[in-house]
Amino acid sequence: MVSFESDYICGAHPKLLQALIDTNMDAQSGYGFDCYTASAAKKIAEACELPEAQVTFLSGGTQTNLIAIDALLRSYEGVVAAETGHVNVHESGAIEHTGHKVLTLPSHDGKMRAEDLKAMLEKYYADETLEHMVRPGMVYLTWPTEQGTLYSKAELTAIADLCHQYKMPLFLDGARLGYGLVSPQADLTLPEIARLTDVFYIGGTKVGALCGEALVFTKNNQPEHFLSFIKQRGALYAKGRLCGVQFDALFTDGLYYEISRHAIRLAERLKQIFRDKGYAFHPETYTNQIFPVLPAAMIPALREKVRFELWEKLDEERTVVRFVTSWSTTDADLDYLESVL
Amino acid sequence: MVSFESDYICGAHPKLLQALIDTNMDAQSGYGFDCYTASAAKKIAEACELPEAQVTFLSGGTQTNLIAIDALLRSYEGVVAAETGHVNVHESGAIEHTGHKVLTLPSHDGKMRAEDLKAMLEKYYADETLEHMVRPGMVYLTWPTEQGTLYSKAELTAIADLCHQYKMPLFLDGARLGYGLVSPQADLTLPEIARLTDVFYIGGTKVGALCGEALVFTKNNQPEHFLSFIKQRGALYAKGRLCGVQFDALFTDGLYYEISRHAIRLAERLKQIFRDKGYAFHPETYTNQIFPVLPAAMIPALREKVRFELWEKLDEERTVVRFVTSWSTTDADLDYLESVL
Amino acid sequence: MVSFESDYICGAHPKLLQALIDTNMDAQSGYGFDCYTASAAKKIAEACELPEAQVTFLSGGTQTNLIAIDALLRSYEGVVAAETGHVNVHESGAIEHTGHKVLTLPSHDGKMRAEDLKAMLEKYYADETLEHMVRPGMVYLTWPTEQGTLYSKAELTAIADLCHQYKMPLFLDGARLGYGLVSPQADLTLPEIARLTDVFYIGGTKVGALCGEALVFTKNNQPEHFLSFIKQRGALYAKGRLCGVQFDALFTDGLYYEISRHAIRLAERLKQIFRDKGYAFHPETYTNQIFPVLPAAMIPALREKVRFELWEKLDEERTVVRFVTSWSTTDADLDYLESVL
Amino acid sequence: MVSFESDYICGAHPKLLQALIDTNMDAQSGYGFDCYTASAAKKIAEACELPEAQVTFLSGGTQTNLIAIDALLRSYEGVVAAETGHVNVHESGAIEHTGHKVLTLPSHDGKMRAEDLKAMLEKYYADETLEHMVRPGMVYLTWPTEQGTLYSKAELTAIADLCHQYKMPLFLDGARLGYGLVSPQADLTLPEIARLTDVFYIGGTKVGALCGEALVFTKNNQPEHFLSFIKQRGALYAKGRLCGVQFDALFTDGLYYEISRHAIRLAERLKQIFRDKGYAFHPETYTNQIFPVLPAAMIPALREKVRFELWEKLDEERTVVRFVTSWSTTDADLDYLESVL
Repeated sequence: MVSFESDYICGAHPKLLQALIDTNMDAQSGYGFDCYTASAAKKIAEACELPEAQVTFLSGGTQTNLIAIDALLRSYEGVVAAETGHVNVHESGAIEHTGHKVLTLPSHDGKMRAEDLKAMLEKYYADETLEHMVRPGMVYLTWPTEQGTLYSKAELTAIADLCHQYKMPLFLDGARLGYGLVSPQADLTLPEIARLTDVFYIGGTKVGALCGEALVFTKNNQPEHFLSFIKQRGALYAKGRLCGVQFDALFTDGLYYEISRHAIRLAERLKQIFRDKGYAFHPETYTNQIFPVLPAAMIPALREKVRFELWEKLDEERTVVRFVTSWSTTDADLDYLESVL
Repeated sequence: MVSFESDYICGAHPKLLQALIDTNMDAQSGYGFDCYTASAAKKIAEACELPEAQVTFLSGGTQTNLIAIDALLRSYEGVVAAETGHVNVHESGAIEHTGHKVLTLPSHDGKMRAEDLKAMLEKYYADETLEHMVRPGMVYLTWPTEQGTLYSKAELTAIADLCHQYKMPLFLDGARLGYGLVSPQADLTLPEIARLTDVFYIGGTKVGALCGEALVFTKNNQPEHFLSFIKQRGALYAKGRLCGVQFDALFTDGLYYEISRHAIRLAERLKQIFRDKGYAFHPETYTNQIFPVLPAAMIPALREKVRFELWEKLDEERTVVRFVTSWSTTDADLDYLESVL
Repeated sequence: MVSFESDYICGAHPKLLQALIDTNMDAQSGYGFDCYTASAAKKIAEACELPEAQVTFLSGGTQTNLIAIDALLRSYEGVVAAETGHVNVHESGAIEHTGHKVLTLPSHDGKMRAEDLKAMLEKYYADETLEHMVRPGMVYLTWPTEQGTLYSKAELTAIADLCHQYKMPLFLDGARLGYGLVSPQADLTLPEIARLTDVFYIGGTKVGALCGEALVFTKNNQPEHFLSFIKQRGALYAKGRLCGVQFDALFTDGLYYEISRHAIRLAERLKQIFRDKGYAFHPETYTNQIFPVLPAAMIPALREKVRFELWEKLDEERTVVRFVTSWSTTDADLDYLESVL
Repeated sequence: MVSFESDYICGAHPKLLQALIDTNMDAQSGYGFDCYTASAAKKIAEACELPEAQVTFLSGGTQTNLIAIDALLRSYEGVVAAETGHVNVHESGAIEHTGHKVLTLPSHDGKMRAEDLKAMLEKYYADETLEHMVRPGMVYLTWPTEQGTLYSKAELTAIADLCHQYKMPLFLDGARLGYGLVSPQADLTLPEIARLTDVFYIGGTKVGALCGEALVFTKNNQPEHFLSFIKQRGALYAKGRLCGVQFDALFTDGLYYEISRHAIRLAERLKQIFRDKGYAFHPETYTNQIFPVLPAAMIPALREKVRFELWEKLDEERTVVRFVTSWSTTDADLDYLESVL
């Protein structure tokens, strides 16, 4: 069935699969000590315009989030996130399992506001009992957010400035980073994101890879013995090449951007299809996830023809749904959707 | 360079790669809710002759060990292992990171002895202060062991009987299970292992897959909400199909055994090559890892020609080394080794 | 200086001190296996009218909360609390350190509402991605609350009914339980609380003891090997008698109630003093903590004469402060306060 | 019954009880911000001849061990201990519960040897796979040991030198420190111990207090926000004065030494009683724990008259038992024992 269920419905972008085939019989050392991993890390550092960036490849988003956060916080510190943040909602308590509280700020279409962060920090530092409270130790945000929205350069800079002032690392979850970078709405580049954050990750799983996220420490701030840290959490691939080969391909000849642009072009066309049929968005987004508002009554029949996710019930009559595009989405899929709408 | 460094030096067995190619564009749900994962689980349950076996796919060995152990122990319980057990030595403290002590027994060529286990349990239960001690909560063993040896059916049965008597689950780490099952020395079958253990895993990473281990709960004893448990530890693949497709191929037409037999045939030939040159083994093994004793003086020159691991210094003159075979090892590799020895 | 800073400003109620003196030279076994601990546990079970209640003595509130919660939750479960709950705000992240999320509900003068709890549970169970979310595993509430308020019998029963329906244990933090039980506003007795909850604790530290809280499992539901569980968390006293002797005295001849009534009488008189001077309360409470609203300008001079805590800034001109009474507060203290106001 | 069961069979030394009575009604702030805690900390720093020593009071030994160890190790590091070390045997897995492995060395009458430690460290640093192994991060030893023995100044210095060389903190568990300091066999003073270690604790519970251990960071190396760290583990007393008052008394006019000397005098007399009756020791010790070897056949009858612990079965006929003295032991207790032997 034609599916807009997520950006991880198919295998790998054909060029990544080809790279796996081409390198398959080359004997290499394990645990990331292979030439492909080294090459991928170097290409990513160059793309970030940060020669000293330290790049590690992990298998998925939750794993990357919990490792980055646990590596940077002291035990009694928490991570500040929008209340809709992935770490707060959809990771089965993975962050708390590492011992850390997620300190939440109100979400505005998936984004926290610098002024809310500032107010939280000022309140905390003014409290006479602060040693009995969880110390805000770092800030986590997603870009694009879980709701498909984007922080602008001004918004991200304001948050980064606060982090700097309060000596808190800023961590950006880029599970769908590519879709943000090529969004018609974006005013941030990869090197800018690398400079504004202390650590961030470049999503592979949702941007064409079978698996894999590239975690980047941008300020020569990767903790010592990080390989042991990862191994201890069961997150070290014996065949580290699996991520290395794929990311090497993603960062060769701009494939990461090419994949992202394809998905964005189709997402924009998808929006046009819904708009032409008279449907609104909640909110309107400019990345690869779009959120049309549909009459509740039409959804069951539509779901028999195409796959998509229910997102939120607005009221008895209207439901927000989610449609997602990726490298594997085709114009034919959209033609079909148009025909059944 | 010709490499006998490990059984994870190359990518995937070509048939697994082909399966990934063939299924690549088939849109499926994520998180293991795809048809390939379902099919692989069913084939494994059948191969175990246990229709009610519950099968979950995880990315690597340490991850699988820590999840299985943490899922089955109460917080104040520990896992009993041979002191050479992987969980005790080579996982950067992953088990302790889950909060559990590894209680060790002496290793006899990598194996614990049932009589030592019995003595430990009797001593523990006779101690007046036992509530202040770590309670032996389960038993962990590897098959084949880290030293390439195998528990016999009698040995495994004796341990399983003790586990049963003391109500402790028996967990078998089968990272290299295939090599044990087809070993000339083995007297255990997959269904027998499934029946004797409470939980075990079938290694994929070291037996031809890019990644993946199949964790099998054999007694309808998989903990409730196990998906949340896995997700919380960052171990749930978004593209669960990655493991599903590979294990489906491994358990189609006996490929898992075919791969293992290839490696064992070459390991036996490798032993013959060393034996013919007059080298002994320490110990002699019958799986895909062999441990020749070489004069220390010859090792540096040999390492310039082929890759292998140093294992243990016997004395100033003699060093035990490790040579490993796998699906990617060829007779040509062995011809070359023979020529340079 | 005369102090209304908290209910733990002095040592122990003289009768507890006398009991420690009287029993001091009696040789007893350690770790709670002494006759005083046994006697205290028995008296508490009787006071609860639950002969099968299982009573354990721990040193303080945070320790008791983290042990009770960690003992009852599975790793991926969280504890539901009002957002003002002590476990959510003032325990330096102790609950998260055990690996569990605190799931918050809005606070209404320190209390959660059954309807909000119901809505949270219904939303969770209706979510298609619930396995990726933290499972509500138990409910935590304080009685009296951190804000000095009390759940009525109807309110507590409504919450207990929901807990029962959703199979979630209900845990009541009674750090100041005595002050609730004798409050003019209370309509709940100790046996009723014991019956409505699955586990609760009777606070000693804030009700006359040097240290100690009595944790009560009410439904024969204390986890197995609970002594090991406690020992593993560093919470087992070698001289368990320290708590045993004090609680034995507290539950002899109604001393626990007598101490509480004394504090409540003085708190009511304190309210009258403030009311007579024209000050309002925010909110008005009927336990041993009262919250007058004072002009910000008068606070510095007042604090030079008596000790009390700043609670919350209402606006630029008005600040809520907290005055607390206990067994050690005297009418003379109040006379003095009246004279300086 | 006359009891030699442990050094925590009675309440508090009368002078400590008197100090609690004397200070009972003095209103003080909570959480260790009282004048008695400040005074006790100052006296201990002076007794250590280390004005910058940072002193914190905790309730018991296991709690102190787990907090000190968890505060100083990174997650993938372990603590090195003799295999008989309290943290390895009798804390229900408290150290592993904080996530850290206890790396064991052979015990020689309860002590590790510097040469064994050196060999362990050299082996670890020579291993090519060390990043997959638990990193030795600190050293733990007890003084006196669990078996009543003492490291000499030369032995402790050799271990401290290795720790220094390998940049590992040295932690000394002084649950029974006083008994070591006044032992006829000791050649170490409190200031020497303070200088040789990075962190150690002065036991109160077993040396006359109701509860309490004084944790001393000796090199201005107490972790930041240590109060939050302690609070998060449920180890912060609301009435911090409970420990403060007792330790203030213990370190006034040499009471800590006086208590210890009393116990040692009686222990030496106890040894003489057993020696006179022809019993040997296993091993002979010079602290407040003595270990006579008794005929197994005589033990049941003796246990009906005096309390003591069974320690170890030497063979079918002989059992090592433990007799312990403390401030509460009297010459009359020994006269009685002598009469029944």
